[in-house]
Amino acid sequence: MQSHDFFLTLLIILLTARVFAELAGRLKAPTVIGELLAGVILGPSLLGWAEPSEAIKLMAEIGIILLLFEVGLGTDPRQLAQAGPKSLVVALGGFGLPFLLGFSVGYWVFDLSLLTSLFIGGTLTATSIGITARVLTDLKRHHAPEGQIILGAAILDDVMGVVLLALLYEFSMGDGVTLGNAGKVIMFVASFFILAPVAAKLMSVIIKHINTTTEIPGLVPTTIVSLVLLFAWLAHFMGAPELLGGFAAGLALSRRFFLPFGTALHADPSFAEDIEREMKPVIHLFTPIFFVMVGLSLNLREIDWSSPFIWVFSMALMIAAVIGKLAGPMLIREPWPTRWIIGTAMVPRGEVGLIFAELGRESRILNNEIYAGMIIVIALTTVLSPFAMKALYGRFSHRLQTAERV
Amino acid sequence: MQSHDFFLTLLIILLTARVFAELAGRLKAPTVIGELLAGVILGPSLLGWAEPSEAIKLMAEIGIILLLFEVGLGTDPRQLAQAGPKSLVVALGGFGLPFLLGFSVGYWVFDLSLLTSLFIGGTLTATSIGITARVLTDLKRHHAPEGQIILGAAILDDVMGVVLLALLYEFSMGDGVTLGNAGKVIMFVASFFILAPVAAKLMSVIIKHINTTTEIPGLVPTTIVSLVLLFAWLAHFMGAPELLGGFAAGLALSRRFFLPFGTALHADPSFAEDIEREMKPVIHLFTPIFFVMVGLSLNLREIDWSSPFIWVFSMALMIAAVIGKLAGPMLIREPWPTRWIIGTAMVPRGEVGLIFAELGRESRILNNEIYAGMIIVIALTTVLSPFAMKALYGRFSHRLQTAERV
Repeated sequence: MQSHDFFLTLLIILLTARVFAELAGRLKAPTVIGELLAGVILGPSLLGWAEPSEAIKLMAEIGIILLLFEVGLGTDPRQLAQAGPKSLVVALGGFGLPFLLGFSVGYWVFDLSLLTSLFIGGTLTATSIGITARVLTDLKRHHAPEGQIILGAAILDDVMGVVLLALLYEFSMGDGVTLGNAGKVIMFVASFFILAPVAAKLMSVIIKHINTTTEIPGLVPTTIVSLVLLFAWLAHFMGAPELLGGFAAGLALSRRFFLPFGTALHADPSFAEDIEREMKPVIHLFTPIFFVMVGLSLNLREIDWSSPFIWVFSMALMIAAVIGKLAGPMLIREPWPTRWIIGTAMVPRGEVGLIFAELGRESRILNNEIYAGMIIVIALTTVLSPFAMKALYGRFSHRLQTAERV
Repeated sequence: MQSHDFFLTLLIILLTARVFAELAGRLKAPTVIGELLAGVILGPSLLGWAEPSEAIKLMAEIGIILLLFEVGLGTDPRQLAQAGPKSLVVALGGFGLPFLLGFSVGYWVFDLSLLTSLFIGGTLTATSIGITARVLTDLKRHHAPEGQIILGAAILDDVMGVVLLALLYEFSMGDGVTLGNAGKVIMFVASFFILAPVAAKLMSVIIKHINTTTEIPGLVPTTIVSLVLLFAWLAHFMGAPELLGGFAAGLALSRRFFLPFGTALHADPSFAEDIEREMKPVIHLFTPIFFVMVGLSLNLREIDWSSPFIWVFSMALMIAAVIGKLAGPMLIREPWPTRWIIGTAMVPRGEVGLIFAELGRESRILNNEIYAGMIIVIALTTVLSPFAMKALYGRFSHRLQTAERV
């Protein structure tokens, strides 16, 4: 690819994302909707102007990882730990029920094969941590108690989803699925989450030390981006999703992160501010590329809209997808508005669902019609729930706890 | 390419660049030398750890364009215009003499073909505006009078080099080279340089207006990067080097840029500060990637060090390369130390020279040995002249005019 073609694609993506984000903002909609729409309009669904080249895809990946880094940076680890049990309940409910419902719709209602039905169930388990985190950030609720529950649940969901995906994939390849395999994956992911923030914290102390002695500008953006990339790579290496590496790195650099064994490594608020100030422009540059990419990946033209199957199938799955995610938070002790908000926040399947569906199509487990049905469900859940969240927040804002922003 | 491989390569590049830049800084050498060295060490010359994938190359391109944007942003257009006539003399001397000397060495001393000799001369005309601008910035002399002369001369040199390259390329393809063709290229480049800053200025007014009304963060990094990419693309479209588009965009947004026909578009110092503050981290992230790439592109192992030809040939060209560039500034009326500094600043061939040599190899005009000789000259001029500049500045600092930094 010639560099000037790449520049043109990149600038069209950045500018269109911005224009539609501004429009969404004026219409009081979450800006991420505008960015997704920009992708749908630029992509094969409508204009076909921007083709996602490899370089753009990789920059989009950096974008989503940096967004998770920003979310981690703003997270209070103590609050996240407090939200832990509730997050676990929400995640388990939002994982188990969509899986069962999705499988049932496929296997019993539409008489599909066992493997196809399992894949449909698996795709419905996903929660788009990217979309959810972005909507919470747009609404300034990512530091709020329910924001922390949602975030924790979305992370756990992502981890469970990846484990399930790995198992289904091995299953489809005809290899034996053993409990030992599954246990190994879970163990690796868990140890990553225990060790990564500690390691990131130690490295940030080194960066801080260099920052006070160096005269060469640009230390923070280069080293912090390197740190985030390193943990994304480590996460992948340990079998966890890459974007969780970004979150772990952000968590370690957050103002309130503390290590149990050392007071010498206490967070330095002014360094944390330096990081936030210098990283924000970089994050804001890369993040929209990701959401435009999600829109670009949807090809609404591929769908045969005249077939009755597609309407009935996707409608049934849509119901399964929404009910499955709303049920989890009903099991925790929170005011009703909070439960609804948490449930709604878990609905978007976004990029994680797309990864599942794409893998199903590539391995020929999902045929074109079923794939199209999945895509409709992923698109609708992704596009509609930010609106629903915004509406719920508008309706119940007076009854929610105030966000504790430090 | 898998995204985790890409993350690993990118973080190795960023971290190694930083480590060697810090080392260079401690040894009082220009930091750009450290970044070039990082590339040589990581690349095929030594470790072979980092291979420049397409995505990294494109990010490196963004890096050099953003650096030129930063240089443009810090440039005072009036000062640049004042330096104009002197720049032109330096550029013409530094273009004509190396071309003649390089051609003579090839054609008469080493008895090479006409086309090969022309290509050797053409390669020697290049001035690495990237390296030169970076060294001046490192030494904080890019706003000084001699810095403006150097910058103007390097830009003119780049334009002339590209025109020459286009002509030699058509010549080597067997097409007729007409004066009309050459004139067309020159006219396009000239009109780009007259129109681009005006257009960029008008766009920046729109961005500034949105900036005062929007509530969505991230306007400056996305729109300014888009603006820079747009002008890089336009520059290419008009036949000028892409990095000059970055410079034109920066010039238009500089604090002292003015349009002849309107007082309503006067520069807003606080908006210029916003741009500088938010763009710096982005620029500092991308720029080192470029200089590491230049180091990665050199393969010192490809050279047959035992052949006497390579030593004699590259020594002869090296002398031609240095004398050719030092002669130009001797024709202008400046104190002697300034003349020496300007001449030395024009010596590095860097990325522009590499582009010439690479094209010569691809079109089989330069065989492997001659190519290796050119690479040695490009590497030596690029690596040594920053040291020489630093030494000259150290020796004569008390006799130079102070930089006027606003």
